[in-house]
Amino acid sequence: MTTTVSAYAATSADAPLTKTTIERRDVGPHDVAFDIKFAGICHSDIHTVKGEWGVPDYPVVAGHEIAGVVTEVGSEVTKYKVGDHVGVGCFVDSCRECDNCKAGLQQYCTGEGGMVGTYNATGKDGTPTYGGYSQAIVVDENYVLRIPESIPLDKAAPLLCAGITLFSPLNHWGAGPGKKVAIVGLGGLGHMGVKIAHAMGASVTVLSQSLKKMEDGLRLGADEYYATSDPDTFTKLAGTFDLIINTVSANLNLAAYLNLLATDGTLVEVGAPEKPMEVPFFPLGVYRRSLAGSMIGGIPETQEMLDFCAKHDVTPEIEVIDASYVNEAYERVLSSDVRYRFVIDAATI
Amino acid sequence: MTTTVSAYAATSADAPLTKTTIERRDVGPHDVAFDIKFAGICHSDIHTVKGEWGVPDYPVVAGHEIAGVVTEVGSEVTKYKVGDHVGVGCFVDSCRECDNCKAGLQQYCTGEGGMVGTYNATGKDGTPTYGGYSQAIVVDENYVLRIPESIPLDKAAPLLCAGITLFSPLNHWGAGPGKKVAIVGLGGLGHMGVKIAHAMGASVTVLSQSLKKMEDGLRLGADEYYATSDPDTFTKLAGTFDLIINTVSANLNLAAYLNLLATDGTLVEVGAPEKPMEVPFFPLGVYRRSLAGSMIGGIPETQEMLDFCAKHDVTPEIEVIDASYVNEAYERVLSSDVRYRFVIDAATI
Repeated sequence: MTTTVSAYAATSADAPLTKTTIERRDVGPHDVAFDIKFAGICHSDIHTVKGEWGVPDYPVVAGHEIAGVVTEVGSEVTKYKVGDHVGVGCFVDSCRECDNCKAGLQQYCTGEGGMVGTYNATGKDGTPTYGGYSQAIVVDENYVLRIPESIPLDKAAPLLCAGITLFSPLNHWGAGPGKKVAIVGLGGLGHMGVKIAHAMGASVTVLSQSLKKMEDGLRLGADEYYATSDPDTFTKLAGTFDLIINTVSANLNLAAYLNLLATDGTLVEVGAPEKPMEVPFFPLGVYRRSLAGSMIGGIPETQEMLDFCAKHDVTPEIEVIDASYVNEAYERVLSSDVRYRFVIDAATI
Repeated sequence: MTTTVSAYAATSADAPLTKTTIERRDVGPHDVAFDIKFAGICHSDIHTVKGEWGVPDYPVVAGHEIAGVVTEVGSEVTKYKVGDHVGVGCFVDSCRECDNCKAGLQQYCTGEGGMVGTYNATGKDGTPTYGGYSQAIVVDENYVLRIPESIPLDKAAPLLCAGITLFSPLNHWGAGPGKKVAIVGLGGLGHMGVKIAHAMGASVTVLSQSLKKMEDGLRLGADEYYATSDPDTFTKLAGTFDLIINTVSANLNLAAYLNLLATDGTLVEVGAPEKPMEVPFFPLGVYRRSLAGSMIGGIPETQEMLDFCAKHDVTPEIEVIDASYVNEAYERVLSSDVRYRFVIDAATI
């Protein structure tokens, strides 16, 4: 038995997203079913539905920033009950047996096929996974996050991808008091980086192409704000940062950015640049710098992030939209015309 | 007053090294003068004298793997006395005031011009520095290392660059029991990496182009040895290593090597590839891997390395040569025909 729910789906790379219905599986013993209240729009939704990361299995119901309220739990479920505020991020399952899964690093699952994506993947029952642009979802309790009551559900949604994507590297590489952190790009990801790094107690600098969003950046918690279109920025800030997180997927002049790192500093890429990065040896070697990559976070760290955000009152800046606006929203994301995250009101799906 | 000593110098990029004389400064209050007994030949000597790293100030007296015996100390010197076994590595001074110098990371000195190279640099007295292909040298005591008596001076020399170049990243990135380390390339640097990582208690794998030196590699302490010309190597070892140290200056297919790292693993470049490296995002991002660079080590860590090598009986494999053989030795280094380091007997200079 399955349940039919409304959803917004892409049926091809070129077609606009349209309203349709999908089936959600019956609630198994370890499952949590919840009504989706809000779903954030992530740039990777757009990459996927447009086939830019390989041809997906259409129809694609995107959305991996999902927040809602529990409506039913399976007989063996212990962590959640009806009425709880919950969320789901970028994955809904993983092998559970590899070292990374056992260590709570499910995002780096080394089992066959790795983690099971929230959409455009195949669940363990062999059916396709469909994401958050829909009215309800059924997920194993071990892959469900608890959303603290103090975070409104619309603002909670983007934390499940944008939030954890920045929290995890900031946490892993030790952002905190006495550390100088730079966030490259002030978009959906970057603005979360500013807020979280600031809440962690780090000194935060935004490196943005222009000074257009400077006022915003400072209001969100940045201590300083520089334009990367100004060559003086790279002279003035040479050797400054312990940690730089690049949220921009365009290929940067990495030599220039690496030179902004202090000794032993790390530049972390989270924006998944499409082309290989060009990395000269000397900016790395002369001060023992590192270039690293990071992807979202595991279940324990995602929960830690949600609790951290509740404690420090960190939430994204959002624009709540009706589902019917999703295609226009995609266009606006592509032209960076959003401050800073679109969130679909799932009641309108 | 200066002292005239014999040396082997390069007078242009094309000319062979020839015997000449140079002046060494008078021993100042903080200086140590010592007779050079042995000087190792490092690949970077060749890069420098041939002008491959920019046109040097000819004549160049190369050599930054220097071991000898103290002949005179300045009035204020407290660390050394006549007759002590001492060494000098890649630098003979630094600003002493920057955070890195204060932290003992003189190799990453951020003062103007950085550390003062042992050759092809300008000392604080405004005179050119000349390296180890000479009979004697005068160096500030703070930049002189103590060579433990149990290490023969000929074998001590290469520790001052090849040894510390490998010890420092192995130490910094935590090679030790339970860690899997791969050393790419079994040359002057690589063979020290195998010995040191093995002595640190790590499991050591050599990744070499062919299996030609396999017997050597295993004898030197490697647990495993693989040919990188065999594509199966990259399938079989995927996700294996906590740390890979690349000693090869040729540009590798970095995506392939990054895939050999375990989650949170680091690939450290010490071989200074000439062209920018091409680094795709996904091999970094999918398992939070890092690409890093490292250069030699600071004075305290170099002393730590010498003491470690004495304690664990770690010394390089060397071929001692007369100074007059230096030009042929250079040719043989360029064709990788040395097992594993040439060391000039300074008595023949």
